[in-house]
Amino acid sequence: MESKIILPERDMPRQWYNALPDLPTPLAPPLEPGSGKPVTPDMLAPIFPQAVIEQEMSPEARIDIPEPVLDIYRLFRPTPLVRAHRLEKALGVKCKIFYKDESRSPAGSHKPNTAIPQAYYNAREGVKRLATETGAGQWGTALSFACKMFGLQCTVYMVKVSYNQKPYRRILINSYGAEVFPSPSDKTQTGRDILAKDPDCQGSLGLAISEAVEDAATHEDTKYALGSVLNHVVLHQTIVGLETEKQLAMAGEKPDFLVGCVGGGSNFGGLVLPFLPRKLSGEKIRFIAAEPKACPTLTRGQFRYDYGDVARLTPLLKMHTLGHAYMPAPIHAGGLRYHGDAPIVCNLAAEGIVEARSYFQNDCFEAARLFQATEGFLPAPETSHAIKAAIDVAREAEPGQNVVFLFSGHGLLDLASYDAYMQGNLVDFEHSQEDIDESLKACPTFD
Amino acid sequence: MESKIILPERDMPRQWYNALPDLPTPLAPPLEPGSGKPVTPDMLAPIFPQAVIEQEMSPEARIDIPEPVLDIYRLFRPTPLVRAHRLEKALGVKCKIFYKDESRSPAGSHKPNTAIPQAYYNAREGVKRLATETGAGQWGTALSFACKMFGLQCTVYMVKVSYNQKPYRRILINSYGAEVFPSPSDKTQTGRDILAKDPDCQGSLGLAISEAVEDAATHEDTKYALGSVLNHVVLHQTIVGLETEKQLAMAGEKPDFLVGCVGGGSNFGGLVLPFLPRKLSGEKIRFIAAEPKACPTLTRGQFRYDYGDVARLTPLLKMHTLGHAYMPAPIHAGGLRYHGDAPIVCNLAAEGIVEARSYFQNDCFEAARLFQATEGFLPAPETSHAIKAAIDVAREAEPGQNVVFLFSGHGLLDLASYDAYMQGNLVDFEHSQEDIDESLKACPTFD
Repeated sequence: MESKIILPERDMPRQWYNALPDLPTPLAPPLEPGSGKPVTPDMLAPIFPQAVIEQEMSPEARIDIPEPVLDIYRLFRPTPLVRAHRLEKALGVKCKIFYKDESRSPAGSHKPNTAIPQAYYNAREGVKRLATETGAGQWGTALSFACKMFGLQCTVYMVKVSYNQKPYRRILINSYGAEVFPSPSDKTQTGRDILAKDPDCQGSLGLAISEAVEDAATHEDTKYALGSVLNHVVLHQTIVGLETEKQLAMAGEKPDFLVGCVGGGSNFGGLVLPFLPRKLSGEKIRFIAAEPKACPTLTRGQFRYDYGDVARLTPLLKMHTLGHAYMPAPIHAGGLRYHGDAPIVCNLAAEGIVEARSYFQNDCFEAARLFQATEGFLPAPETSHAIKAAIDVAREAEPGQNVVFLFSGHGLLDLASYDAYMQGNLVDFEHSQEDIDESLKACPTFD
Repeated sequence: MESKIILPERDMPRQWYNALPDLPTPLAPPLEPGSGKPVTPDMLAPIFPQAVIEQEMSPEARIDIPEPVLDIYRLFRPTPLVRAHRLEKALGVKCKIFYKDESRSPAGSHKPNTAIPQAYYNAREGVKRLATETGAGQWGTALSFACKMFGLQCTVYMVKVSYNQKPYRRILINSYGAEVFPSPSDKTQTGRDILAKDPDCQGSLGLAISEAVEDAATHEDTKYALGSVLNHVVLHQTIVGLETEKQLAMAGEKPDFLVGCVGGGSNFGGLVLPFLPRKLSGEKIRFIAAEPKACPTLTRGQFRYDYGDVARLTPLLKMHTLGHAYMPAPIHAGGLRYHGDAPIVCNLAAEGIVEARSYFQNDCFEAARLFQATEGFLPAPETSHAIKAAIDVAREAEPGQNVVFLFSGHGLLDLASYDAYMQGNLVDFEHSQEDIDESLKACPTFD
């Protein structure tokens, strides 16, 4: 009874897949906040390197992965595709369940897939330091690791609630040589303004983004790196789906359901987008996105232009949003606490190509514990949403169908969350429609 | 530039290698503490299942791995053998460095290799609960995981200094359904006696063993499981070396140096023993054991009979020992804080077949950080000793030689140690000869 489908290193994909040219409805362009006009590449130059800006808008369906990036990928890639025999048995389902294990990277998640090329392109263009935000800490870990590999300095603004909940994450990021500040911090004007109004502010991903962007924009040798949402990030993550496609072919299987959790949408997009051409050409593959009920962007947000950050420093993106000032409840899946989602994923959700489901965190932890009790590994709280959705989908699936979900990260640095869950101390949050409507009022009207 | 040598799942070894019949000098038998006579199988029956007792004394060179054990092994095995290209380059060495990555298990270390069969054999023989000790927490995690897989209850006595240093370890063990007590505890007579004398006692592995053995011996439905030292434990760990041998053959390489850290000796024995027949038949392979200067069992201990635990409940084993009441300094590599070592490893060390080196913990953390900065992954403090030794050996090696070391576990639950190291707060310990001589006086005289 074989469990793991291992792609030989020599067969690791050497190109990423860019979904932009294949989208049935073209992606709405990012808009400049002041004028409402489409953003031009030169506007992004203060915060991103040239290669990344080109990728953000590229019309090419395949983009070469540079050799130095492949070298670092090879420290942990290709990652295994694993048949979850024991989970299937515990559920009593007749479908097959596979998980693509992205927890095997040094950072413990899929995030290095984009951190590595971003660090590489910046280093190649002479940048000395990268600034970024992090929610649960997965992205901060990934970027600090990638910066270490290419000799860059790294500054991480970490959402304060996670900074306090997860001291080990902070140490791990430090251990890769990065400096870490709780956000809101006194290091930026944005942070100082917020702290003046609310000294106890627990932060949000949108706010931390504002701080990191300001840091990059106000320092000559520094650029910004984002861990999700943008096209180039999703592009880099497609190595996950491209490997999965090859691995399923090796096993003589085809996917019926592809399942991932959605915070900003990059791990989900990375898994499903390489299968988009097949789906568009008629193959029956369902793309299932799982998100928290405490931050129900795809299931309850509006599809419209909004800012990516609280301070309105970023371009406007057309995406599902809960409003850029939305403060999600402090659930333990910190990486899913973002008001928006990747425009590419939202574009497909608006077309009905991506289906979204939302879950309470206690149900997700229960699913995570079942996974742990059967397959052995402890999932990250974010990943638990994908597991919950995969279990639901598996129960709905026909005998012989294949459910493939993305195991985006391990939970070894989220043990305080599990302790709280086991003690029965986790609260389930769901915002009222009034709250969400109120938050959406702050959105600009550029539609 | 390929990095990983992946053994296909179908080629995973289906037998363990038992070194007992191949030892140049037969192993001295374990002795019954009271009489000084060799231990008979029936004496071990109260604490071990029959299958384990048979393996402990088996004359067979190959022992079949049961199918249900293989099924659980397949959740994470075979593990990769990885070429450390970037570490080689940073060191400027001309030899090749490989590491066998046992951090990939659910428990994060090599320990499940024996936890799984031990849990299986106990469950098969109708045992309901296993009691054990744990130092740094790796073994407790592994046994609780294995018990979960086979439906057994699990009680873990965790050395108090580690219990307090590593709260996440305790939660992780709990998350696999086990109960965890800091040792010395008030759950056993041994623990209560110690606490009465020294309420602040920080514990030791030897003491925690006493508690777990007492628990098993005094409860009908409970048996004991040990994570290192004994022959059957080392036997189960030989899957590491057997896989490594196949992987090196796949790469067309042969090992010149095999390097591992030694706490009780099981990961080291598991790596090197399968190469013993080749070494004995004249092939030039050096077996290098790395241990802490704070607990220098092989480098400064005496090779003689001693108890395995503080309370003198265990049989006498002929091994290198610092004295069974030795209290090693509270270094962060908790898993290496044991006064003795596996008799098989000691037998070979006494013959000069195993060479031992000892290191200060700051030097080991420095080596670990170099590994992290080049290969990306954060090692456990125990593993850092193997890395330090491997680096030293690589610098001594001839061009073209191969250094293979065992990456026994990751450091993601040891981040407080790294924080202390980065802050410059780690102290290097070395006991005086007087201390060690004094400790050795307590050894029995059965030689």
